[in-house]
Amino acid sequence: MNSASDSHPELSELPIGIFDSGVGGLTVYRALHEQLPDERFVYLGDTARVPYGTKSLATVERYAIENARFLESHGIKLLVVACNTASALALPAIRQSVGVDVIGVIEPGAKAAIQVAQGGSIGVIATEATVQSRAYATAIEELDKQIQVTERACPLFVSLAEEGWADTDVARAVASKYLSELKASHIRTLVLGCTHYPILKRVIQEAIGPEVLLIDSGEAAAREVQSLLQSRELRHSRNERMASERELCDDLDHFYVTDAAERFSRVAKRFLGVTPSVLEAVEVWGHDELRTH
Amino acid sequence: MNSASDSHPELSELPIGIFDSGVGGLTVYRALHEQLPDERFVYLGDTARVPYGTKSLATVERYAIENARFLESHGIKLLVVACNTASALALPAIRQSVGVDVIGVIEPGAKAAIQVAQGGSIGVIATEATVQSRAYATAIEELDKQIQVTERACPLFVSLAEEGWADTDVARAVASKYLSELKASHIRTLVLGCTHYPILKRVIQEAIGPEVLLIDSGEAAAREVQSLLQSRELRHSRNERMASERELCDDLDHFYVTDAAERFSRVAKRFLGVTPSVLEAVEVWGHDELRTH
Repeated sequence: MNSASDSHPELSELPIGIFDSGVGGLTVYRALHEQLPDERFVYLGDTARVPYGTKSLATVERYAIENARFLESHGIKLLVVACNTASALALPAIRQSVGVDVIGVIEPGAKAAIQVAQGGSIGVIATEATVQSRAYATAIEELDKQIQVTERACPLFVSLAEEGWADTDVARAVASKYLSELKASHIRTLVLGCTHYPILKRVIQEAIGPEVLLIDSGEAAAREVQSLLQSRELRHSRNERMASERELCDDLDHFYVTDAAERFSRVAKRFLGVTPSVLEAVEVWGHDELRTH
Repeated sequence: MNSASDSHPELSELPIGIFDSGVGGLTVYRALHEQLPDERFVYLGDTARVPYGTKSLATVERYAIENARFLESHGIKLLVVACNTASALALPAIRQSVGVDVIGVIEPGAKAAIQVAQGGSIGVIATEATVQSRAYATAIEELDKQIQVTERACPLFVSLAEEGWADTDVARAVASKYLSELKASHIRTLVLGCTHYPILKRVIQEAIGPEVLLIDSGEAAAREVQSLLQSRELRHSRNERMASERELCDDLDHFYVTDAAERFSRVAKRFLGVTPSVLEAVEVWGHDELRTH
Protein backbone atom coordinates (compact mmCIF):
# COMPACT_ATOMS: atom_id res chain seq x y z
CA MET A 1 0.00 0.00 0.00
CA ASN A 2 2.91 2.34 0.69
CA SER A 3 4.08 2.48 -2.88
CA ALA A 4 0.58 3.54 -3.92
CA SER A 5 0.49 6.47 -1.53
CA ASP A 6 4.14 7.42 -2.17
CA SER A 7 3.49 7.90 -5.85
CA HIS A 8 0.45 10.17 -5.25
CA PRO A 9 -1.82 8.46 -7.73
CA GLU A 10 -5.18 9.83 -8.78
CA LEU A 11 -7.69 9.38 -5.98
CA SER A 12 -9.70 6.96 -8.11
CA GLU A 13 -6.71 4.61 -8.31
CA LEU A 14 -6.65 4.15 -4.54
CA PRO A 15 -8.19 1.06 -2.97
CA ILE A 16 -11.41 0.97 -0.95
CA GLY A 17 -10.84 0.43 2.78
CA ILE A 18 -12.98 -2.08 4.68
CA PHE A 19 -12.81 -2.71 8.38
CA ASP A 20 -14.53 -5.25 10.56
CA SER A 21 -14.19 -6.51 14.12
CA GLY A 22 -12.80 -9.74 12.70
CA VAL A 23 -13.40 -12.24 9.95
CA GLY A 24 -17.16 -11.74 9.45
CA GLY A 25 -16.62 -8.66 7.26
CA LEU A 26 -15.30 -10.97 4.55
CA THR A 27 -18.94 -11.44 3.48
CA VAL A 28 -19.05 -7.67 2.86
CA TYR A 29 -15.70 -7.84 1.05
CA ARG A 30 -17.14 -10.59 -1.16
CA ALA A 31 -20.23 -8.48 -1.95
CA LEU A 32 -18.05 -5.46 -2.80
CA HIS A 33 -15.72 -7.59 -4.89
CA GLU A 34 -18.64 -8.99 -6.91
CA GLN A 35 -20.26 -5.58 -7.36
CA LEU A 36 -17.01 -3.73 -8.14
CA PRO A 37 -14.60 -6.10 -9.88
CA ASP A 38 -12.45 -3.18 -11.10
CA GLU A 39 -11.62 -1.99 -7.62
CA ARG A 40 -8.84 -2.95 -5.22
CA PHE A 41 -9.57 -3.45 -1.51
CA VAL A 42 -7.65 -3.17 1.73
CA TYR A 43 -9.29 -5.04 4.60
CA LEU A 44 -8.60 -4.73 8.32
CA GLY A 45 -9.97 -7.34 10.77
CA ASP A 46 -9.56 -6.31 14.41
CA THR A 47 -9.07 -9.89 15.55
CA ALA A 48 -7.23 -8.88 18.74
CA ARG A 49 -10.38 -7.22 20.07
CA VAL A 50 -13.19 -9.17 18.39
CA PRO A 51 -16.13 -9.40 19.10
CA TYR A 52 -17.60 -5.89 19.30
CA GLY A 53 -21.18 -7.17 19.72
CA THR A 54 -20.96 -7.59 23.49
CA LYS A 55 -19.00 -4.40 24.17
CA SER A 56 -20.03 -0.89 25.22
CA LEU A 57 -20.53 2.21 23.07
CA ALA A 58 -17.37 3.95 24.34
CA THR A 59 -15.18 0.90 23.70
CA VAL A 60 -16.57 0.21 20.22
CA GLU A 61 -16.08 3.89 19.31
CA ARG A 62 -12.47 3.83 20.43
CA TYR A 63 -11.65 0.63 18.54
CA ALA A 64 -13.49 1.82 15.41
CA ILE A 65 -11.63 5.14 15.30
CA GLU A 66 -8.26 3.38 15.61
CA ASN A 67 -9.19 1.02 12.78
CA ALA A 68 -10.46 3.82 10.54
CA ARG A 69 -7.31 5.90 11.04
CA PHE A 70 -5.09 2.91 10.35
CA LEU A 71 -6.78 2.34 6.99
CA GLU A 72 -6.82 6.05 6.14
CA SER A 73 -3.07 6.22 6.76
CA HIS A 74 -2.62 3.49 4.15
CA GLY A 75 -4.25 5.57 1.41
CA ILE A 76 -7.87 4.75 0.61
CA LYS A 77 -10.49 6.63 -1.38
CA LEU A 78 -13.49 5.48 0.66
CA LEU A 79 -14.06 3.60 3.92
CA VAL A 80 -16.64 0.85 4.35
CA VAL A 81 -17.50 -0.05 7.94
CA ALA A 82 -18.43 -3.70 7.38
CA CYS A 83 -19.11 -4.41 11.06
CA ASN A 84 -22.78 -3.85 11.92
CA THR A 85 -21.98 -3.13 15.57
CA ALA A 86 -19.40 -0.47 14.66
CA SER A 87 -21.82 0.95 12.05
CA ALA A 88 -24.60 1.06 14.65
CA LEU A 89 -22.58 2.60 17.46
CA ALA A 90 -19.66 4.50 16.02
CA LEU A 91 -20.44 5.93 12.56
CA PRO A 92 -20.60 9.60 13.70
CA ALA A 93 -17.33 9.21 15.62
CA ILE A 94 -15.62 7.55 12.65
CA ARG A 95 -16.81 10.27 10.25
CA GLN A 96 -15.33 12.91 12.55
CA SER A 97 -12.00 11.08 12.67
CA VAL A 98 -11.16 10.55 9.01
CA GLY A 99 -11.17 12.68 5.88
CA VAL A 100 -12.61 10.16 3.42
CA ASP A 101 -16.24 9.26 2.83
CA VAL A 102 -17.52 6.58 5.20
CA ILE A 103 -20.28 4.09 4.41
CA GLY A 104 -21.74 1.84 7.10
CA VAL A 105 -24.01 -1.16 6.61
CA ILE A 106 -27.03 -0.09 8.70
CA GLU A 107 -28.55 2.60 6.47
CA PRO A 108 -28.15 0.66 3.21
CA GLY A 109 -29.63 -2.42 4.93
CA ALA A 110 -32.56 -0.41 6.30
CA LYS A 111 -33.26 1.17 2.90
CA ALA A 112 -33.15 -2.16 1.09
CA ALA A 113 -35.45 -3.73 3.67
CA ILE A 114 -38.05 -0.96 3.26
CA GLN A 115 -37.92 -1.30 -0.52
CA VAL A 116 -38.68 -5.00 -0.55
CA ALA A 117 -41.03 -5.03 2.48
CA GLN A 118 -43.54 -2.85 0.59
CA GLY A 119 -45.27 -1.76 3.77
CA GLY A 120 -45.03 -5.15 5.49
CA SER A 121 -43.25 -5.46 8.83
CA ILE A 122 -39.49 -5.97 9.09
CA GLY A 123 -37.42 -8.24 11.32
CA VAL A 124 -33.78 -7.59 12.18
CA ILE A 125 -31.32 -10.13 13.57
CA ALA A 126 -27.98 -8.85 14.88
CA THR A 127 -25.51 -8.84 17.79
CA GLU A 128 -26.59 -7.86 21.30
CA ALA A 129 -24.98 -4.41 20.99
CA THR A 130 -26.59 -3.67 17.61
CA VAL A 131 -30.03 -4.73 18.85
CA GLN A 132 -29.60 -2.70 22.04
CA SER A 133 -28.63 0.38 20.01
CA ARG A 134 -31.89 0.12 18.00
CA ALA A 135 -29.85 1.45 15.06
CA TYR A 136 -31.80 -0.50 12.43
CA ALA A 137 -35.19 0.37 13.96
CA THR A 138 -34.21 4.05 14.11
CA ALA A 139 -32.91 4.07 10.52
CA ILE A 140 -36.12 2.42 9.30
CA GLU A 141 -38.37 4.79 11.32
CA GLU A 142 -36.57 7.79 9.86
CA LEU A 143 -37.47 6.61 6.37
CA ASP A 144 -40.95 5.28 7.12
CA LYS A 145 -42.67 5.75 10.47
CA GLN A 146 -45.46 3.27 9.68
CA ILE A 147 -43.33 0.16 9.41
CA GLN A 148 -43.19 -2.15 12.40
CA VAL A 149 -39.70 -3.43 13.27
CA THR A 150 -38.89 -6.42 15.51
CA GLU A 151 -35.27 -7.06 16.51
CA ARG A 152 -33.61 -10.17 17.93
CA ALA A 153 -30.00 -10.86 18.99
CA CYS A 154 -28.65 -14.20 17.73
CA PRO A 155 -25.15 -14.49 19.25
CA LEU A 156 -24.70 -18.22 18.58
CA PHE A 157 -24.85 -17.67 14.82
CA VAL A 158 -21.32 -16.23 14.92
CA SER A 159 -19.74 -19.33 16.46
CA LEU A 160 -21.81 -21.61 14.20
CA ALA A 161 -20.49 -19.80 11.11
CA GLU A 162 -16.88 -19.81 12.33
CA GLU A 163 -17.06 -23.50 13.28
CA GLY A 164 -18.11 -24.36 9.72
CA TRP A 165 -21.43 -25.71 11.03
CA ALA A 166 -23.60 -23.64 8.68
CA ASP A 167 -25.31 -26.64 7.16
CA THR A 168 -25.88 -28.87 10.19
CA ASP A 169 -28.83 -29.99 12.31
CA VAL A 170 -27.39 -27.96 15.16
CA ALA A 171 -27.54 -24.79 13.03
CA ARG A 172 -31.12 -25.65 12.06
CA ALA A 173 -32.09 -26.13 15.72
CA VAL A 174 -30.43 -22.85 16.77
CA ALA A 175 -32.05 -20.93 13.89
CA SER A 176 -35.48 -22.31 14.65
CA LYS A 177 -35.11 -21.42 18.36
CA TYR A 178 -33.93 -17.86 17.64
CA LEU A 179 -36.45 -17.17 14.88
CA SER A 180 -39.64 -18.76 16.23
CA GLU A 181 -41.05 -15.47 17.61
CA LEU A 182 -40.11 -13.51 14.49
CA LYS A 183 -41.77 -16.21 12.40
CA ALA A 184 -44.94 -15.98 14.50
CA SER A 185 -45.02 -12.20 14.04
CA HIS A 186 -45.39 -12.59 10.24
CA ILE A 187 -42.61 -10.32 9.07
CA ARG A 188 -42.27 -9.66 5.34
CA THR A 189 -38.52 -9.08 5.33
CA LEU A 190 -35.63 -10.14 7.56
CA VAL A 191 -32.41 -8.10 7.73
CA LEU A 192 -29.22 -10.09 8.31
CA GLY A 193 -27.70 -7.43 10.58
CA CYS A 194 -24.38 -9.12 11.33
CA THR A 195 -21.66 -9.93 8.83
CA HIS A 196 -21.55 -13.59 9.87
CA TYR A 197 -25.21 -14.27 9.20
CA PRO A 198 -25.04 -14.53 5.37
CA ILE A 199 -22.93 -17.66 5.92
CA LEU A 200 -26.06 -19.19 7.52
CA LYS A 201 -28.47 -17.84 4.88
CA ARG A 202 -29.84 -21.24 3.96
CA VAL A 203 -30.78 -22.38 7.48
CA ILE A 204 -32.11 -18.90 8.34
CA GLN A 205 -34.35 -19.00 5.25
CA GLU A 206 -35.54 -22.50 6.19
CA ALA A 207 -36.33 -21.44 9.75
CA ILE A 208 -38.13 -18.19 8.92
CA GLY A 209 -40.01 -19.64 5.93
CA PRO A 210 -39.74 -19.14 2.14
CA GLU A 211 -42.18 -16.19 2.07
CA VAL A 212 -39.80 -13.92 4.04
CA LEU A 213 -37.25 -12.02 1.94
CA LEU A 214 -33.76 -11.89 3.42
CA ILE A 215 -31.74 -8.68 3.16
CA ASP A 216 -27.95 -8.92 3.28
CA SER A 217 -26.77 -5.54 4.60
CA GLY A 218 -23.33 -6.11 3.09
CA GLU A 219 -24.79 -6.47 -0.41
CA ALA A 220 -26.92 -3.37 0.16
CA ALA A 221 -23.82 -1.45 1.26
CA ALA A 222 -21.91 -2.63 -1.81
CA ARG A 223 -24.60 -1.16 -4.07
CA GLU A 224 -24.40 2.12 -2.14
CA VAL A 225 -20.61 2.17 -2.53
CA GLN A 226 -21.01 1.66 -6.26
CA SER A 227 -23.39 4.57 -6.65
CA LEU A 228 -21.29 6.86 -4.43
CA LEU A 229 -18.14 6.13 -6.46
CA GLN A 230 -20.11 6.78 -9.64
CA SER A 231 -21.46 10.13 -8.46
CA ARG A 232 -18.04 11.22 -7.16
CA GLU A 233 -16.36 10.02 -10.37
CA LEU A 234 -14.10 7.84 -8.29
CA ARG A 235 -14.50 4.54 -10.13
CA HIS A 236 -11.19 2.83 -10.81
CA SER A 237 -10.19 2.81 -14.45
CA ARG A 238 -10.21 -0.74 -15.73
CA ASN A 239 -6.84 -2.21 -16.53
CA GLU A 240 -5.89 -5.47 -18.16
CA ARG A 241 -5.47 -7.45 -14.92
CA MET A 242 -8.71 -6.21 -13.42
CA ALA A 243 -12.24 -7.52 -13.82
CA SER A 244 -11.70 -10.37 -16.23
CA GLU A 245 -9.08 -12.20 -14.22
CA ARG A 246 -9.93 -10.84 -10.79
CA GLU A 247 -10.31 -13.44 -8.09
CA LEU A 248 -11.35 -13.20 -4.44
CA CYS A 249 -8.35 -12.65 -2.17
CA ASP A 250 -5.83 -12.34 -5.02
CA ASP A 251 -2.72 -10.23 -4.53
CA LEU A 252 -4.41 -7.00 -5.62
CA ASP A 253 -6.31 -6.99 -2.31
CA HIS A 254 -4.45 -6.58 0.96
CA PHE A 255 -5.58 -8.00 4.28
CA TYR A 256 -4.50 -6.89 7.74
CA VAL A 257 -5.41 -8.40 11.10
CA THR A 258 -4.57 -7.22 14.60
CA ASP A 259 -3.97 -10.76 15.85
CA ALA A 260 -3.95 -14.49 15.02
CA ALA A 261 -3.47 -14.33 11.23
CA GLU A 262 -3.40 -18.12 10.95
CA ARG A 263 -6.89 -18.47 12.42
CA PHE A 264 -8.15 -15.65 10.15
CA SER A 265 -6.89 -17.55 7.11
CA ARG A 266 -8.54 -20.76 8.26
CA VAL A 267 -11.94 -19.12 8.75
CA ALA A 268 -11.52 -17.10 5.52
CA LYS A 269 -11.12 -20.39 3.67
CA ARG A 270 -14.37 -21.56 5.27
CA PHE A 271 -16.24 -18.35 4.36
CA LEU A 272 -14.86 -17.61 0.89
CA GLY A 273 -13.32 -20.87 -0.27
CA VAL A 274 -9.92 -19.18 -0.55
CA THR A 275 -7.32 -17.64 1.77
CA PRO A 276 -5.86 -14.13 1.37
CA SER A 277 -2.69 -13.97 -0.78
CA VAL A 278 -1.47 -10.92 1.14
CA LEU A 279 -2.15 -11.09 4.87
CA GLU A 280 -0.25 -9.24 7.57
CA ALA A 281 -0.59 -8.88 11.35
CA VAL A 282 -0.40 -5.26 12.53
CA GLU A 283 -1.02 -3.06 15.55
CA VAL A 284 -3.56 -0.30 15.16
CA TRP A 285 -3.41 1.06 18.71
CA GLY A 286 -0.81 3.28 20.36
CA HIS A 287 2.57 1.68 20.84
CA ASP A 288 2.74 3.40 24.24
CA GLU A 289 0.21 0.86 25.47
CA LEU A 290 2.87 -1.86 25.36
CA ARG A 291 5.18 0.06 27.66
CA THR A 292 2.71 1.05 30.37
CA HIS A 293 2.87 -0.06 34.02
CA MET B 1 -9.65 -1.97 48.42
CA ASN B 2 -7.55 1.15 48.87
CA SER B 3 -8.37 1.49 52.54
CA ALA B 4 -7.13 -2.06 53.07
CA SER B 5 -3.72 -1.38 51.54
CA ASP B 6 -3.45 2.09 53.14
CA SER B 7 -3.74 0.62 56.61
CA HIS B 8 -1.04 -2.04 56.00
CA PRO B 9 -3.04 -4.95 57.34
CA GLU B 10 -1.60 -8.36 57.95
CA LEU B 11 -1.06 -10.17 54.66
CA SER B 12 -3.60 -12.80 55.66
CA GLU B 13 -6.34 -10.17 55.92
CA LEU B 14 -5.96 -9.24 52.24
CA PRO B 15 -8.37 -10.62 49.67
CA ILE B 16 -7.57 -13.24 47.04
CA GLY B 17 -7.36 -11.83 43.51
CA ILE B 18 -9.06 -13.65 40.63
CA PHE B 19 -8.89 -12.65 37.00
CA ASP B 20 -10.62 -13.99 33.97
CA SER B 21 -11.10 -12.91 30.37
CA GLY B 22 -14.74 -12.18 31.21
CA VAL B 23 -17.67 -13.63 33.07
CA GLY B 24 -16.77 -17.35 32.86
CA GLY B 25 -14.36 -17.10 35.80
CA LEU B 26 -17.36 -16.69 38.07
CA THR B 27 -17.54 -20.49 38.18
CA VAL B 28 -14.02 -20.42 39.67
CA TYR B 29 -15.05 -17.65 42.05
CA ARG B 30 -17.98 -19.82 43.16
CA ALA B 31 -15.70 -22.80 43.76
CA LEU B 32 -13.26 -20.66 45.78
CA HIS B 33 -16.10 -19.10 47.74
CA GLU B 34 -17.49 -22.52 48.66
CA GLN B 35 -14.08 -23.90 49.58
CA LEU B 36 -12.91 -20.81 51.47
CA PRO B 37 -15.91 -19.09 53.05
CA ASP B 38 -13.68 -17.05 55.39
CA GLU B 39 -11.86 -15.30 52.56
CA ARG B 40 -12.66 -12.14 50.65
CA PHE B 41 -12.22 -11.97 46.87
CA VAL B 42 -11.50 -9.32 44.30
CA TYR B 43 -12.45 -10.35 40.78
CA LEU B 44 -11.43 -8.76 37.49
CA GLY B 45 -13.23 -9.71 34.25
CA ASP B 46 -11.48 -8.35 31.14
CA THR B 47 -14.78 -7.89 29.30
CA ALA B 48 -13.34 -5.25 26.93
CA ARG B 49 -11.01 -7.85 25.40
CA VAL B 50 -12.88 -11.13 25.90
CA PRO B 51 -12.55 -13.82 24.53
CA TYR B 52 -8.92 -14.90 24.88
CA GLY B 53 -9.56 -18.35 23.41
CA THR B 54 -9.17 -17.27 19.77
CA LYS B 55 -6.20 -14.95 20.33
CA SER B 56 -2.44 -15.37 19.99
CA LEU B 57 0.14 -16.13 22.66
CA ALA B 58 1.67 -12.62 22.58
CA THR B 59 -1.71 -10.93 22.91
CA VAL B 60 -2.95 -13.18 25.72
CA GLU B 61 0.33 -12.62 27.59
CA ARG B 62 0.02 -8.85 27.30
CA TYR B 63 -3.59 -8.79 28.49
CA ALA B 64 -2.87 -11.23 31.34
CA ILE B 65 0.04 -9.18 32.66
CA GLU B 66 -2.05 -6.00 32.67
CA ASN B 67 -4.83 -7.78 34.56
CA ALA B 68 -2.43 -9.32 37.09
CA ARG B 69 -0.75 -5.97 37.80
CA PHE B 70 -4.09 -4.24 38.21
CA LEU B 71 -5.14 -6.74 40.87
CA GLU B 72 -1.75 -6.66 42.60
CA SER B 73 -1.96 -2.88 42.84
CA HIS B 74 -5.24 -3.29 44.74
CA GLY B 75 -3.63 -5.35 47.48
CA ILE B 76 -4.07 -9.11 47.26
CA LYS B 77 -2.33 -11.98 49.02
CA LEU B 78 -2.58 -14.48 46.16
CA LEU B 79 -3.59 -14.41 42.51
CA VAL B 80 -5.79 -17.03 40.86
CA VAL B 81 -5.75 -17.08 37.07
CA ALA B 82 -9.27 -18.40 36.50
CA CYS B 83 -9.06 -18.22 32.71
CA ASN B 84 -7.84 -21.52 31.23
CA THR B 85 -6.45 -19.80 28.13
CA ALA B 86 -4.43 -17.31 30.21
CA SER B 87 -3.29 -20.16 32.49
CA ALA B 88 -2.24 -22.22 29.46
CA LEU B 89 -0.42 -19.46 27.61
CA ALA B 90 0.71 -16.82 30.09
CA LEU B 91 1.44 -18.29 33.52
CA PRO B 92 5.24 -17.87 33.33
CA ALA B 93 4.85 -14.27 32.11
CA ILE B 94 2.34 -13.48 34.89
CA ARG B 95 4.61 -14.99 37.57
CA GLN B 96 7.45 -12.76 36.36
CA SER B 97 5.25 -9.67 36.51
CA VAL B 98 3.83 -9.79 40.03
CA GLY B 99 5.21 -10.38 43.52
CA VAL B 100 2.42 -12.59 44.90
CA ASP B 101 1.93 -16.33 44.45
CA VAL B 102 0.06 -17.20 41.28
CA ILE B 103 -2.16 -20.27 40.82
CA GLY B 104 -3.55 -21.21 37.43
CA VAL B 105 -6.22 -23.79 36.66
CA ILE B 106 -4.32 -26.10 34.28
CA GLU B 107 -1.99 -27.87 36.72
CA PRO B 108 -4.64 -28.45 39.40
CA GLY B 109 -7.02 -29.70 36.71
CA ALA B 110 -4.39 -32.05 35.27
CA LYS B 111 -3.50 -33.42 38.72
CA ALA B 112 -7.13 -34.03 39.64
CA ALA B 113 -7.76 -35.77 36.31
CA ILE B 114 -4.83 -38.14 36.79
CA GLN B 115 -5.99 -38.97 40.33
CA VAL B 116 -9.46 -40.03 39.27
CA ALA B 117 -8.49 -41.57 35.90
CA GLN B 118 -6.46 -44.26 37.67
CA GLY B 119 -4.47 -45.03 34.55
CA GLY B 120 -7.40 -44.69 32.14
CA SER B 121 -7.22 -42.17 29.33
CA ILE B 122 -8.18 -38.53 29.76
CA GLY B 123 -10.18 -36.18 27.54
CA VAL B 124 -9.85 -32.41 27.68
CA ILE B 125 -12.35 -29.90 26.27
CA ALA B 126 -11.30 -26.25 26.09
CA THR B 127 -10.99 -23.15 23.87
CA GLU B 128 -9.13 -23.25 20.55
CA ALA B 129 -6.08 -21.49 22.05
CA THR B 130 -5.89 -23.81 25.08
CA VAL B 131 -6.16 -26.91 22.89
CA GLN B 132 -3.57 -25.56 20.46
CA SER B 133 -1.17 -24.86 23.35
CA ARG B 134 -1.42 -28.51 24.48
CA ALA B 135 -1.05 -27.15 28.03
CA TYR B 136 -3.24 -29.85 29.62
CA ALA B 137 -1.59 -32.67 27.65
CA THR B 138 1.86 -31.38 28.62
CA ALA B 139 0.91 -31.00 32.30
CA ILE B 140 -0.51 -34.54 32.35
CA GLU B 141 2.51 -36.00 30.53
CA GLU B 142 4.86 -34.37 33.03
CA LEU B 143 3.09 -36.19 35.84
CA ASP B 144 2.45 -39.48 34.05
CA LYS B 145 3.90 -40.31 30.63
CA GLN B 146 1.69 -43.39 30.16
CA ILE B 147 -1.66 -41.65 30.12
CA GLN B 148 -3.26 -40.98 26.76
CA VAL B 149 -4.79 -37.51 26.37
CA THR B 150 -7.29 -36.43 23.71
CA GLU B 151 -8.18 -32.76 23.38
CA ARG B 152 -11.10 -31.05 21.64
CA ALA B 153 -12.04 -27.38 21.26
CA CYS B 154 -15.74 -26.65 21.92
CA PRO B 155 -16.16 -22.92 21.17
CA LEU B 156 -19.97 -22.97 20.99
CA PHE B 157 -20.25 -23.98 24.65
CA VAL B 158 -19.33 -20.42 25.68
CA SER B 159 -22.22 -18.78 23.80
CA LEU B 160 -24.61 -21.51 24.93
CA ALA B 161 -23.73 -20.85 28.59
CA GLU B 162 -23.96 -17.07 28.22
CA GLU B 163 -27.31 -17.30 26.37
CA GLY B 164 -28.77 -19.27 29.28
CA TRP B 165 -29.33 -22.26 26.99
CA ALA B 166 -27.53 -24.76 29.25
CA ASP B 167 -30.52 -27.04 29.58
CA THR B 168 -31.93 -27.03 26.04
CA ASP B 169 -32.16 -29.46 23.14
CA VAL B 170 -29.76 -27.19 21.24
CA ALA B 171 -27.16 -27.61 24.00
CA ARG B 172 -27.68 -31.38 23.93
CA ALA B 173 -27.22 -31.45 20.13
CA VAL B 174 -24.05 -29.33 20.31
CA ALA B 175 -22.60 -31.43 23.14
CA SER B 176 -23.29 -34.68 21.34
CA LYS B 177 -21.66 -33.33 18.14
CA TYR B 178 -18.57 -32.08 19.96
CA LEU B 179 -18.14 -35.12 22.18
CA SER B 180 -18.92 -38.01 19.82
CA GLU B 181 -15.27 -38.74 19.02
CA LEU B 182 -14.18 -38.44 22.65
CA LYS B 183 -17.02 -40.80 23.59
CA ALA B 184 -15.89 -43.33 20.98
CA SER B 185 -12.32 -43.20 22.33
CA HIS B 186 -13.49 -44.50 25.74
CA ILE B 187 -11.94 -41.92 28.02
CA ARG B 188 -12.18 -42.43 31.76
CA THR B 189 -12.14 -38.76 32.75
CA LEU B 190 -13.07 -35.53 31.01
CA VAL B 191 -11.51 -32.21 32.06
CA LEU B 192 -13.76 -29.14 31.71
CA GLY B 193 -10.90 -26.91 30.54
CA CYS B 194 -12.82 -23.66 30.14
CA THR B 195 -14.53 -21.70 32.91
CA HIS B 196 -17.85 -21.65 31.04
CA TYR B 197 -18.17 -25.40 30.72
CA PRO B 198 -19.26 -26.20 34.31
CA ILE B 199 -22.47 -24.28 33.48
CA LEU B 200 -23.16 -27.04 30.91
CA LYS B 201 -22.10 -29.89 33.20
CA ARG B 202 -25.41 -31.73 32.94
CA VAL B 203 -25.57 -31.89 29.13
CA ILE B 204 -21.85 -32.66 28.89
CA GLN B 205 -22.31 -35.58 31.28
CA GLU B 206 -25.32 -36.82 29.29
CA ALA B 207 -23.40 -36.62 26.01
CA ILE B 208 -20.19 -38.29 27.20
CA GLY B 209 -21.99 -40.96 29.25
CA PRO B 210 -22.37 -41.58 33.02
CA GLU B 211 -19.20 -43.70 33.26
CA VAL B 212 -16.91 -40.73 32.49
CA LEU B 213 -15.90 -38.62 35.50
CA LEU B 214 -15.94 -34.87 34.91
CA ILE B 215 -13.17 -32.71 36.36
CA ASP B 216 -13.90 -29.04 37.02
CA SER B 217 -10.51 -27.30 36.86
CA GLY B 218 -11.88 -24.39 38.89
CA GLU B 219 -12.79 -26.68 41.79
CA ALA B 220 -9.37 -28.34 41.58
CA ALA B 221 -7.68 -24.91 41.66
CA ALA B 222 -9.78 -23.91 44.70
CA ARG B 223 -8.47 -26.94 46.61
CA GLU B 224 -4.91 -25.98 45.64
CA VAL B 225 -5.48 -22.41 46.84
CA GLN B 226 -6.74 -23.75 50.15
CA SER B 227 -3.68 -25.90 50.72
CA LEU B 228 -1.28 -23.15 49.65
CA LEU B 229 -2.86 -20.64 52.07
CA GLN B 230 -2.66 -23.26 54.80
CA SER B 231 1.02 -24.01 54.20
CA ARG B 232 1.89 -20.29 54.00
CA GLU B 233 -0.22 -19.53 57.11
CA LEU B 234 -2.18 -17.04 55.08
CA ARG B 235 -5.73 -18.14 55.92
CA HIS B 236 -7.97 -15.24 56.86
CA SER B 237 -8.94 -15.16 60.51
CA ARG B 238 -12.65 -15.77 60.83
CA ASN B 239 -14.70 -12.81 61.98
CA GLU B 240 -18.34 -12.57 62.89
CA ARG B 241 -19.58 -11.55 59.43
CA MET B 242 -17.61 -14.23 57.65
CA ALA B 243 -18.46 -17.85 56.95
CA SER B 244 -21.82 -18.14 58.64
CA GLU B 245 -23.50 -15.27 56.84
CA ARG B 246 -21.33 -15.19 53.76
CA GLU B 247 -23.21 -15.14 50.48
CA LEU B 248 -22.02 -15.24 46.87
CA CYS B 249 -21.43 -11.73 45.51
CA ASP B 250 -22.11 -9.95 48.82
CA ASP B 251 -20.38 -6.64 49.55
CA LEU B 252 -17.25 -8.27 50.99
CA ASP B 253 -16.27 -9.32 47.46
CA HIS B 254 -15.41 -6.68 44.87
CA PHE B 255 -15.89 -7.11 41.15
CA TYR B 256 -14.21 -5.14 38.40
CA VAL B 257 -14.80 -5.32 34.66
CA THR B 258 -13.01 -3.55 31.83
CA ASP B 259 -16.26 -2.97 29.89
CA ALA B 260 -20.03 -3.46 29.78
CA ALA B 261 -20.77 -3.91 33.51
CA GLU B 262 -24.50 -4.20 32.87
CA ARG B 263 -24.03 -7.25 30.63
CA PHE B 264 -21.64 -8.80 33.18
CA SER B 265 -24.32 -8.48 35.87
CA ARG B 266 -26.93 -10.06 33.63
CA VAL B 267 -24.77 -13.09 32.83
CA ALA B 268 -23.59 -13.32 36.48
CA LYS B 269 -27.23 -13.64 37.49
CA ARG B 270 -27.57 -16.49 34.99
CA PHE B 271 -24.41 -18.26 36.23
CA LEU B 272 -24.63 -17.71 40.00
CA GLY B 273 -28.25 -16.78 40.63
CA VAL B 274 -27.15 -13.40 42.05
CA THR B 275 -25.53 -10.20 40.79
CA PRO B 276 -22.42 -8.59 42.35
CA SER B 277 -23.18 -6.05 45.09
CA VAL B 278 -19.99 -4.15 44.32
CA LEU B 279 -19.23 -3.91 40.59
CA GLU B 280 -17.12 -1.25 38.91
CA ALA B 281 -15.90 -0.64 35.34
CA VAL B 282 -12.17 0.13 35.18
CA GLU B 283 -9.30 0.45 32.73
CA VAL B 284 -6.37 -1.89 33.24
CA TRP B 285 -4.30 -0.77 30.27
CA GLY B 286 -2.15 2.34 29.89
CA HIS B 287 -4.07 5.58 29.87
CA ASP B 288 -1.71 6.76 27.12
CA GLU B 289 -3.53 4.42 24.77
CA LEU B 290 -6.58 6.67 24.83
CA ARG B 291 -4.61 9.67 23.70
CA THR B 292 -2.72 8.10 20.80
CA HIS B 293 -3.17 9.06 17.14
